[in-house]
Amino acid sequence: MGTHTCMGYPGTTLDKIDIDAQTFASWGVDYLKFDGCSSNSVEQIIGYPLMSKALNATGRPMAYSCSWPVYVGGLPPNVNYTFLGDICHLWRNYYDIQDSWDSVLGIVEWFSNNQDDLQPAAGPGRWNDPDMLIIGNFGLSVDQARSQMALWAIMAAPLIMSNDLRNLDNSARTILQNKMAIAINQDPMGIQGRRLLQSHIEVYWRPLSQSASALVFLSRRTDMPYLYHSSLGKLSYDAGNYEAYDVFTGATVTGLNATTEFTFSINPSGVVMWYVYPKKASKQTKMLRKTSKLTWQKTVPRNRIVL
Amino acid sequence: MGTHTCMGYPGTTLDKIDIDAQTFASWGVDYLKFDGCSSNSVEQIIGYPLMSKALNATGRPMAYSCSWPVYVGGLPPNVNYTFLGDICHLWRNYYDIQDSWDSVLGIVEWFSNNQDDLQPAAGPGRWNDPDMLIIGNFGLSVDQARSQMALWAIMAAPLIMSNDLRNLDNSARTILQNKMAIAINQDPMGIQGRRLLQSHIEVYWRPLSQSASALVFLSRRTDMPYLYHSSLGKLSYDAGNYEAYDVFTGATVTGLNATTEFTFSINPSGVVMWYVYPKKASKQTKMLRKTSKLTWQKTVPRNRIVL
Repeated sequence: MGTHTCMGYPGTTLDKIDIDAQTFASWGVDYLKFDGCSSNSVEQIIGYPLMSKALNATGRPMAYSCSWPVYVGGLPPNVNYTFLGDICHLWRNYYDIQDSWDSVLGIVEWFSNNQDDLQPAAGPGRWNDPDMLIIGNFGLSVDQARSQMALWAIMAAPLIMSNDLRNLDNSARTILQNKMAIAINQDPMGIQGRRLLQSHIEVYWRPLSQSASALVFLSRRTDMPYLYHSSLGKLSYDAGNYEAYDVFTGATVTGLNATTEFTFSINPSGVVMWYVYPKKASKQTKMLRKTSKLTWQKTVPRNRIVL
Repeated sequence: MGTHTCMGYPGTTLDKIDIDAQTFASWGVDYLKFDGCSSNSVEQIIGYPLMSKALNATGRPMAYSCSWPVYVGGLPPNVNYTFLGDICHLWRNYYDIQDSWDSVLGIVEWFSNNQDDLQPAAGPGRWNDPDMLIIGNFGLSVDQARSQMALWAIMAAPLIMSNDLRNLDNSARTILQNKMAIAINQDPMGIQGRRLLQSHIEVYWRPLSQSASALVFLSRRTDMPYLYHSSLGKLSYDAGNYEAYDVFTGATVTGLNATTEFTFSINPSGVVMWYVYPKKASKQTKMLRKTSKLTWQKTVPRNRIVL
């Protein structure tokens, strides 16, 4: 939006919104990210809703990504997330991701620190966008790549790859194609997850359909694999019988109830990710498990102990 | 040294230095790292030279690593590197490495900022030790792992692995076994390298035997691969004809003289490393090339263009 795009190409001024929307539709465009580097806040208040209306008027379904929040600090009262969810399918809230683990951590930190404002804004058809996956680029270790995939799944984030598809090593491909991580990300309830515990081991949680949930245990340590002890009860789970799939190893943890103590090893800057479900698994869950099996068996990380 | 080791085990007090040195020799110890967490500066002034004498008195050749400098800030006038080189084979100057790219960068930054004090201290049998290689652990991407190997070779650093040998992926193994990087690290002249240029692309240089030299081009960028342009003349090389081996791709750059402009792509947090030699290669250089060939062909990174 404005006289120029963020990369300096000719932009869409307010008077050109209709014709540009129609042109995008005529080209068969599926997804429009409407940046606003060359626009001011008044133009944004007018332009973002106007483009929403113009896209709908074309009759072609196009995903509409609004970079609006990032230009005004990403938080209420500057951002009205209820209104934003009515006019946009997704929006960038925070700074552009860079190809580094520091950048991933900085983004997760900001979204978690502000989860009381951001988490309720998300739902089917209305998503916070913490920016692209940098898995398969140059700055993440294998453990850090699993961590980004896990945390983006918890955050119900759009999964947009940024890597060169012609050159993708097996470990990155396996992570990007992890069917269970994708299924958790795409859960039909569309409830964004939250950070539950903040320490050298951080715990993230997301409620899922079928009474299931996802847990991510992230190590902020930089020394060595850490043996983490906990129980589902300590993580606010209700009494009951559970099982858990380890999303990146394919191991199943059986015989869990809320008080069962468990211990596993988490690599520095790595995660353990669990899909937790009531013991009597539904048919759909079983199917998920089955389709994910192949991926799991390729992705066994090192030094993992599940007791 | 002192009542306890850094990990809290019983230590070597000053009165036990002789008997402990003899015991180590009787055990067939090859390498002693003498920490000093539970000692004060006066005990260190007495103890480090005393252990040197005691180790020599055993008649068994043992490498003697002194953590002394790190306890007193690592720099002159607190550290007398001439004296240290007379009594120790290597010494830790700075903080312990952590399993993260930030830690690697912090160490390289400190050694480079203080290279006028540290670089002349090194030579055969007397080495600065920027701490272990973390290649094959959890915190480095493949590009970052190449960067640590390259920079440790430039710094004439002891190459001490810290990874679990039972679990080492192919990319880490290939980097750790790179014969040319190891040969540069082990160059018989033993001259430590220096940072030549400090910018978003940093250039490091080390003079080697046979009139050769090593260059490392490190990208501090976190956006995308960067096309770097330069010439050997701009990097202070004398007039003459050169060739260069790319240490991590095995490519040869021919027809170089001091004014030849070259361009290559450097990945974010990655390096390009060149072994540069006068065009008329010596017999030894040819042999090096031959033995390194196998490794090179396994290690072709992505997006590399050498013009």
